Amino acid sequence: MPKKKVAKRATHKVTLTKRAQPQLNALDKKTLELIDSTAERVQASILRRTLPELKFPVRSLANVKYDTKKGYFELGRGRKARALSVNTVKNFAQTLRLMAISKDMVADGDFATKREAYYVSKNWGDCKFNEQTESDTVMDDIEALAALEGLSREQLRYYPEDHGGSLAGELVVIDRDSETGGEVRIDCTGMGSGAYQIPHSVEHLKFETNAKFILAIETGGMFSRLNAHKFWKNANCILVSMQGVPSRATRRFIRRLADDKKIPVYCFVDCDPYGIGNIYRTLKVGSGNAAHINRFFCVPQAQYLGVTPQDIIDFKLEDATHKLQAVDIKRAKDALKNDPFFKAHKPWIKAINQMLKMGVRAEQQALAKWGLNFVIEEYLPKKLRNRKGFLP
Amino acid sequence: MPKKKVAKRATHKVTLTKRAQPQLNALDKKTLELIDSTAERVQASILRRTLPELKFPVRSLANVKYDTKKGYFELGRGRKARALSVNTVKNFAQTLRLMAISKDMVADGDFATKREAYYVSKNWGDCKFNEQTESDTVMDDIEALAALEGLSREQLRYYPEDHGGSLAGELVVIDRDSETGGEVRIDCTGMGSGAYQIPHSVEHLKFETNAKFILAIETGGMFSRLNAHKFWKNANCILVSMQGVPSRATRRFIRRLADDKKIPVYCFVDCDPYGIGNIYRTLKVGSGNAAHINRFFCVPQAQYLGVTPQDIIDFKLEDATHKLQAVDIKRAKDALKNDPFFKAHKPWIKAINQMLKMGVRAEQQALAKWGLNFVIEEYLPKKLRNRKGFLP
Repeated sequence: MPKKKVAKRATHKVTLTKRAQPQLNALDKKTLELIDSTAERVQASILRRTLPELKFPVRSLANVKYDTKKGYFELGRGRKARALSVNTVKNFAQTLRLMAISKDMVADGDFATKREAYYVSKNWGDCKFNEQTESDTVMDDIEALAALEGLSREQLRYYPEDHGGSLAGELVVIDRDSETGGEVRIDCTGMGSGAYQIPHSVEHLKFETNAKFILAIETGGMFSRLNAHKFWKNANCILVSMQGVPSRATRRFIRRLADDKKIPVYCFVDCDPYGIGNIYRTLKVGSGNAAHINRFFCVPQAQYLGVTPQDIIDFKLEDATHKLQAVDIKRAKDALKNDPFFKAHKPWIKAINQMLKMGVRAEQQALAKWGLNFVIEEYLPKKLRNRKGFLP
Repeated sequence: MPKKKVAKRATHKVTLTKRAQPQLNALDKKTLELIDSTAERVQASILRRTLPELKFPVRSLANVKYDTKKGYFELGRGRKARALSVNTVKNFAQTLRLMAISKDMVADGDFATKREAYYVSKNWGDCKFNEQTESDTVMDDIEALAALEGLSREQLRYYPEDHGGSLAGELVVIDRDSETGGEVRIDCTGMGSGAYQIPHSVEHLKFETNAKFILAIETGGMFSRLNAHKFWKNANCILVSMQGVPSRATRRFIRRLADDKKIPVYCFVDCDPYGIGNIYRTLKVGSGNAAHINRFFCVPQAQYLGVTPQDIIDFKLEDATHKLQAVDIKRAKDALKNDPFFKAHKPWIKAINQMLKMGVRAEQQALAKWGLNFVIEEYLPKKLRNRKGFLP
């Protein structure tokens, strides 16, 4: 920047709030160790006058396995080594720089989105990224490397652009005041017709709740209905709006909350191949092409409350359904043929075949056919009385 | 529903929270009057044995005008009459039914999404909607009709599926407890790293604030940065994340808050034809094909803080820009040629031409080139010291 601005800088410093010293927990220390040890290995081999190399897990589907016991897609043993050479030198430097920034952010209690990380590089001269796809690829490698140590990308302080979903109900979220370091208590029963929005990163959050379960809901409209009628109070639960396929933050939040408090997670989505195969499946076991992070982001304790193909019959929703389109049928058949999760669970094979046989899909809003609040008065109570009936 | 279930209904009623009697305000009474008078006119002409007709404003662009004084697109005087006939009888009945549901919802303090309204019709026998496009069209007619009386669709209790954006900062939102009818106070300085999510409908909300301005931000990532560093505290402002083109609820919330508290609204988006021509323009004046609702949803007091084409030069962001694509150039030229808002404001004509001349666009995250918090330490303070420089 031109001197003029650098000079001005001082006078504006006021607008950057003094931040509390971040409390480094065990994972943070592990993060710093990973970064230091990686850098030291590189430095050592340079001092030995040998070409340094970095080893990363292979992130292709070929290196993915589904562990039925663990209940999620996991990265295999495949590794690729990247040795320093004329061709790799730029990528090598970029990798180390991104890890260096990560170290600073852990120390400063700051963070960067993947987009910001890309732009930060614009000040790196020759070693800057030309496209974000380049920085994302390097970031994915670092993320996979960290995953081997049980560290997520959020631990490295690189946060996703997309925030978490919204939440309401019987939960107190305990956050940390960035300025004082003190506790911030957010009572999620006190949001009125609005909601608490889950932050980009949830690693530091603590929870207080007596809720009996978490209800993960596909649409914002259904979430608002259950929230407006305080369903969370009578059912003593926590409502989370996933707004389609849940974001990393939403999945991680539900996982941490369900683990900490040992409460079940019930999923309430549309009865179609997308709701089942994309939204629910991503929430529960993660996705194949992100196997290196599923261990953090999947929610193995999730169960499928509905809407099920059988619900369409039991609740007489036939005339509120839509015909399955070619894309739906393809997606459903792919799930039966290729998806290790669905193939591992007979009840799912049965349910998906039933849907294909019926040839229709039904949205959760279809229950409004019997009245706007039929879902609260009849559907959910009836389903919740038979939790053993939930699909795995 | 089969008797069996109807019987069960009683036993589950418990799970529908007793709701407080809704407080009907002047607008609610006006809403009920509109519905009653419309129905009575129809009934009267039937009793006169004449064919009843309903009159709706024409919603085509041909019937739209931009009022520079009012500062938003407005519906013209064009009206279309729909007389009851063999061809219109179904649509006629559907219109009256949707209005009847609206009357019940106002009385019960309930609401329905457009999607739910479509499904409710599945129980109407021959008069049910076959596609949501049908119910949406009827709804748009009713909305236009209500708009003439100064009533929004939310007043009729038909809420959009999409929730509002997220908010943090120097604001207390005063909501109403749906169960007790008592006040719910939401302190938006107490959300930690998370945020308050604006509800689907904001008509009933009240506000307490000493904030000096509202900062409407395009991306969730930038919002999180400003929130994490408590920019709202040092700048004494309210941060709203629009997450792209702002939803109805977000726009209405900002409008009501800015009107009630007489505080300015500053818009902070990407410097590209989309950020300027779609996000900012929609926030400020609304959109041409929704002219019948702009009077409720536009924010005429909004001003454009940045990022401006001149900022790219002043803050040396040239190497953090992207080339304008054909679609960008087309959008920019359309704005100059056809958009009454931009055509009415010389500074915008100058700025858009400057962007076309430079041939590049810059995202708000591009400021990270000078450091992750350059935006907080330098960019925003510098811009805020020269508010007269904001684009109209």
